[in-house]
Amino acid sequence: MITTYKVFVPSVIGSGSSLRTGLELKQLNIKKVLVVYDEGMKKVGISDKILNNLEAAGIEYIVFDKVIPDPPDTTVEEGAKIARESEIEGIVAIGGGSSMDTAKGINVLINNKPPISKYLGVQEGLKDGVPIIAIPTTSGTGSETTNMAVISLTKLNKKDSVVSPVCIPKLAILDPELTLGLPPNMTAATGIDALAHAVESLTGAHSNPLSDALSRESIRLIHKWLPVAYEDGSNLEAREFMMYASNYAGMAFTNALVHVGHSIGHTLGANFHIPHGIACALVLPEVMEYASKTEYKKVAMVCEALGHEIKENATPEEIGQGAKKVLRNFIKSLDIPNIKELDIKLEDLLKVAPAVTQDSGIALAPYRITTKQVTEMLKSAYNA
Amino acid sequence: MITTYKVFVPSVIGSGSSLRTGLELKQLNIKKVLVVYDEGMKKVGISDKILNNLEAAGIEYIVFDKVIPDPPDTTVEEGAKIARESEIEGIVAIGGGSSMDTAKGINVLINNKPPISKYLGVQEGLKDGVPIIAIPTTSGTGSETTNMAVISLTKLNKKDSVVSPVCIPKLAILDPELTLGLPPNMTAATGIDALAHAVESLTGAHSNPLSDALSRESIRLIHKWLPVAYEDGSNLEAREFMMYASNYAGMAFTNALVHVGHSIGHTLGANFHIPHGIACALVLPEVMEYASKTEYKKVAMVCEALGHEIKENATPEEIGQGAKKVLRNFIKSLDIPNIKELDIKLEDLLKVAPAVTQDSGIALAPYRITTKQVTEMLKSAYNA
Repeated sequence: MITTYKVFVPSVIGSGSSLRTGLELKQLNIKKVLVVYDEGMKKVGISDKILNNLEAAGIEYIVFDKVIPDPPDTTVEEGAKIARESEIEGIVAIGGGSSMDTAKGINVLINNKPPISKYLGVQEGLKDGVPIIAIPTTSGTGSETTNMAVISLTKLNKKDSVVSPVCIPKLAILDPELTLGLPPNMTAATGIDALAHAVESLTGAHSNPLSDALSRESIRLIHKWLPVAYEDGSNLEAREFMMYASNYAGMAFTNALVHVGHSIGHTLGANFHIPHGIACALVLPEVMEYASKTEYKKVAMVCEALGHEIKENATPEEIGQGAKKVLRNFIKSLDIPNIKELDIKLEDLLKVAPAVTQDSGIALAPYRITTKQVTEMLKSAYNA
Repeated sequence: MITTYKVFVPSVIGSGSSLRTGLELKQLNIKKVLVVYDEGMKKVGISDKILNNLEAAGIEYIVFDKVIPDPPDTTVEEGAKIARESEIEGIVAIGGGSSMDTAKGINVLINNKPPISKYLGVQEGLKDGVPIIAIPTTSGTGSETTNMAVISLTKLNKKDSVVSPVCIPKLAILDPELTLGLPPNMTAATGIDALAHAVESLTGAHSNPLSDALSRESIRLIHKWLPVAYEDGSNLEAREFMMYASNYAGMAFTNALVHVGHSIGHTLGANFHIPHGIACALVLPEVMEYASKTEYKKVAMVCEALGHEIKENATPEEIGQGAKKVLRNFIKSLDIPNIKELDIKLEDLLKVAPAVTQDSGIALAPYRITTKQVTEMLKSAYNA
């Protein structure tokens, strides 16, 4: 069934909903769009299906299919040039985080002068772009509901984010059918990304009752449905719940923010070129153990949402150890590679610890963390 | 702790947060406001506390303290005249549903010509008003997060709603301290209103995974904390969770919509002058029994959120009967008066059945319902 909800980023949700794209654009009075995706979308037939739908609705479109993983500033700037020249009235982003981030970056540059590197960090005064419709094809990033675009800065060889209302999609279309073809390893890696968002949001600096409720629901859904989607990618029910889980985790973390796990994830990702979801999961069990010292009530919620009951009189330490164990077991059960399996040597791994504590996200940690503590966490994850 | 979330209606939440009102207005660049409340707010000292806060922040204000229950069109029009003449830049609504609905009605008339009765029903093209900050002092209506204002039409002797983006507050301030003084009977009656929203949203015509998650969380919180708040109004934790529960239920029903229970509630309210929450609760158990024929999965969720486990192989009928029983027991436990205790005679009660099936909300019923069925439901509730 196709249903709608209107909360933060309004969404059209349900199986087949991507075939509402043309209709939704019409209702927004948008006649000409830039459609942003990667070549893989064409191969699997997803982009063509949506382009046909736009045509049937009488929407004029220009294709920008040059999205690549870890979207570089150069791609964003190229796309923005096309967007400006062709005077599009909207952007349709089809794909995972990379497509959505590219689309958001393009949107920033429609009425703000390039380069995109001028607009890193939290931006209050940017000029508006055009409405973005985000159509995720993975269940992981939650980017369809966030206010940020992660961009790779080619010359500096690093990643950074633009955080702005201009990055918030006007509408998300959550069609689980688009994820049916995702192979098991991608299903697991993206699903674990959503788990990392939800788990870190619960212990996040701006966590609040609503983000907590969304995080917990997300963890519960991932615990129940990610193993099913991983085992049988054609299970539409599992695909559907994973899409919601990813969306809720996106809503939670765009409000509550993530912290140490993502600082480690970004650093490992940049240094060893590991997919984002996997990079964030590698040390997540240790991050929860660390967080339990002050955030044990929240860490206990993580455990419970993962089906691991916490005794009433459990100490923070016991809660932390429980979380570490249950998270690692869950991650292992999805065959997510560990640090050794990724062929990272211990000495190379430990070298990145200072970079972790220099990551801007580390300011959001539940309590102050030293390079020595990060080193211990990396060691523990290596030996797990 | 004071935290924020930004979803549909962004909120500032937590104990003491009402003392952020001035600061929030400043951040919105609003210098002059109309403050809307009823005389009771002055008596208990709530409005003065907030007015002092506005003064300290240098916000100019005009008081409109003529709010009365079931806000009439005449009050709304009187308030709107003041708002227009004094060129206010924002509205602060302090109170329960009546204050917030009055404020919303006033906002509609700032740039749309009176009378308010011209704008009943779903309105797409209304001219914008000014930003509303909604500060609820009860945990029940959820009006701080909805797009509708219920107005009493004096000449027609009936209630109707304006549904418009102009009614959506710019910000909700959820300060549970403001509910500490609410007497037990009001605590129960407003809390049961939130329960009715959550329960009906779950089986609502536009229910969706997110509204479902919010409804279920709301029911769980109400089940756990309403009895506590009822027994001991000074329990701040219970007051806090009830405020969230009411807010989540508001979010859920503004997206998923309510149905037969509210059609009955509105009709009983209009005919027998019963408070809204109580009127909606009187036949709610029967409504869930009725809904279970088609919506048994959702009705099972209601049961489970109320701590009543449903066997895996339970029939829709068993689920319906379970829901009826658990809901009635919960409502009774809060000493909510039943139909007999409200001194309504059976013959008078049954006379309203045709009016129920003529209520506009009945179109949202899970499946078609006849006057005869409504009569049976009323009889069952009378004899409960």
